[in-house]
Amino acid sequence: MVHHGGRTGAAGGAGLDDVARLAGVSLSTASRALNNHPQVAAATRERVLAAAAGLDYVVSPDASRLAGGSSRARVAVVVPHLSRWFFGRLLEGLEVGLRGDDPRGVDQLLFLVGDVAGRRAFFEDLPARRRVDAAVVVGFEVDEAEQRRLELLGVSIVSAGGPSEPFPSVTVDDHRAGRQAVDHLVHLGHRRIGMLATLDPADRGPDRRTQAYRTALVDAGVPDDPELLVRVAFGAPGGADGMSRLLGLRRPPTAVFAYSDEIAAGAVRTLRRAGLRVPEDVSVVGIDDHPIAELLDLTTVAQPVHEQGVVAGRMVRTLLAGGEPPPSRVLPTQLVLRGTTAPPREAAP
Amino acid sequence: MVHHGGRTGAAGGAGLDDVARLAGVSLSTASRALNNHPQVAAATRERVLAAAAGLDYVVSPDASRLAGGSSRARVAVVVPHLSRWFFGRLLEGLEVGLRGDDPRGVDQLLFLVGDVAGRRAFFEDLPARRRVDAAVVVGFEVDEAEQRRLELLGVSIVSAGGPSEPFPSVTVDDHRAGRQAVDHLVHLGHRRIGMLATLDPADRGPDRRTQAYRTALVDAGVPDDPELLVRVAFGAPGGADGMSRLLGLRRPPTAVFAYSDEIAAGAVRTLRRAGLRVPEDVSVVGIDDHPIAELLDLTTVAQPVHEQGVVAGRMVRTLLAGGEPPPSRVLPTQLVLRGTTAPPREAAP
Repeated sequence: MVHHGGRTGAAGGAGLDDVARLAGVSLSTASRALNNHPQVAAATRERVLAAAAGLDYVVSPDASRLAGGSSRARVAVVVPHLSRWFFGRLLEGLEVGLRGDDPRGVDQLLFLVGDVAGRRAFFEDLPARRRVDAAVVVGFEVDEAEQRRLELLGVSIVSAGGPSEPFPSVTVDDHRAGRQAVDHLVHLGHRRIGMLATLDPADRGPDRRTQAYRTALVDAGVPDDPELLVRVAFGAPGGADGMSRLLGLRRPPTAVFAYSDEIAAGAVRTLRRAGLRVPEDVSVVGIDDHPIAELLDLTTVAQPVHEQGVVAGRMVRTLLAGGEPPPSRVLPTQLVLRGTTAPPREAAP
Repeated sequence: MVHHGGRTGAAGGAGLDDVARLAGVSLSTASRALNNHPQVAAATRERVLAAAAGLDYVVSPDASRLAGGSSRARVAVVVPHLSRWFFGRLLEGLEVGLRGDDPRGVDQLLFLVGDVAGRRAFFEDLPARRRVDAAVVVGFEVDEAEQRRLELLGVSIVSAGGPSEPFPSVTVDDHRAGRQAVDHLVHLGHRRIGMLATLDPADRGPDRRTQAYRTALVDAGVPDDPELLVRVAFGAPGGADGMSRLLGLRRPPTAVFAYSDEIAAGAVRTLRRAGLRVPEDVSVVGIDDHPIAELLDLTTVAQPVHEQGVVAGRMVRTLLAGGEPPPSRVLPTQLVLRGTTAPPREAAP
């Protein structure tokens, strides 16, 4: 891996952009060529190396050592949270996929980038200083600036559990999952359906799930009522607060679609504390099939979390072995009928 | 760090044990001396280096590089699970403690050793091949063979969230936590108290919590009834099954102490499905203050999980900076009264 020593093109020496310009290739290709990335044609690599030599572009000794193939592959695992079940469970699967048949195959470097500062530090600085051969970003969408930064490093990127084009990714279809949940409520006869969406900026999924909520209502011919969409902090306390707000409406919903099972669990608590029966008075559906869903007998849309990790790990191994970038995978979600959804009282037989 | 090239004393060259014998020091001291460990006296280090030179003992180039101090510290984080809240939450704290004021201070290498094979592979093989400067073992007790293995590597060890003498450790007093839970039930007037203990061999805590259960009953003058102690798989389904078994007894308990909140949550579900009221018919208390405890209004004994991680991270930083081994810390636990415990019906006013 090439160490750029800070920004490319900085004063005091040729930058990678100079090398790329001279070689007539993109920054990304220049970086990959200098990293001996398997997907760079030999002729291109020669041209880039010649340009780098001509410009006295400095490739660090560490980079040379790694390029020589003498070192074990190092994979950065970048996660925004670890105390949430989804992330821990996905990482357990990732470990299985990365290990493959060889328990000593890969070193996993863990980067917890929960706050904005941590995420900025990782993308701006850490990969360049901590040599990694690949990175798995878990559960969040890489923005354009972050993507350029990663491509400059010439490392293989795989995205797991979140939408991150243009990298090879494994995820679920959040729009479809949202439709499965809301269509279920519509089919039961509900017309006044609330949504507890999330505020968390690290979760880009909510937009797709919120879109699904809106399109499902449009398709069902239900008029839009913006006060039925409430944004809450992720987790059970957020769901509890949001449900209180929905109950405070002049016309509360007869059914609620929660962004996640943890939010749904908080909503169920608020309903019970308010003396309302679930599902007789209000139906609740979540997404995930978190362990709490079984515990609370919660209807939900299950997503395969462990499997997303396993598949992502295998994708990384394919890339590290010099294979073609694996095609992105969208794993299926599935409605799990339990005890928190039923027809609305007025529509019940 | 010194690479032994496999077992010490293997044929084909001097082993570390030869070096130690010639220098008149223990294997552990020899390894630490060759690693430039700060806790080895200069005179001892000289003697070991002289012995190593005299025996042509090979220290690998990587080891020399690291010993020169030119490399960032690498910390192995060894955890048996990640999908359980306790471990993820502790690792979030560990990240804070390891980072300190410097976001680029330490590389974290993640080792998930959930199954027996993974744990064996880690302790027998991985640390020697993957150069680390310190290791944090999270939530399990290191056995004697594993301990010797780690000491041979000359790395600093810190134990977090589990009992692991003789390393510097941060944990809670599981016996005290168990007493806080069971004494609470005794003080409410319960005499027939069940326990849902765990089977999981990775959790050595249950023994101390089970001991606490037994001694609390002895101190309360309650005769021993072994059928009230039920061992279950960790998690809510285990707790649900165990509670069914307790309800099947000729004389079911009026109160139950669960090894953890997740087990307690399963027990509460079984009780409600059986048409029993919590706490009017049966009281339930757990340990952890897991987020589910607040959600289910569960009385519990809270332990500071994030803080155990932070403290462990700071301990590692102290050791890496060459400081004295920090004293082990036992963080306080606290009874949190919520809605699942009350006096037994016969003793109620």
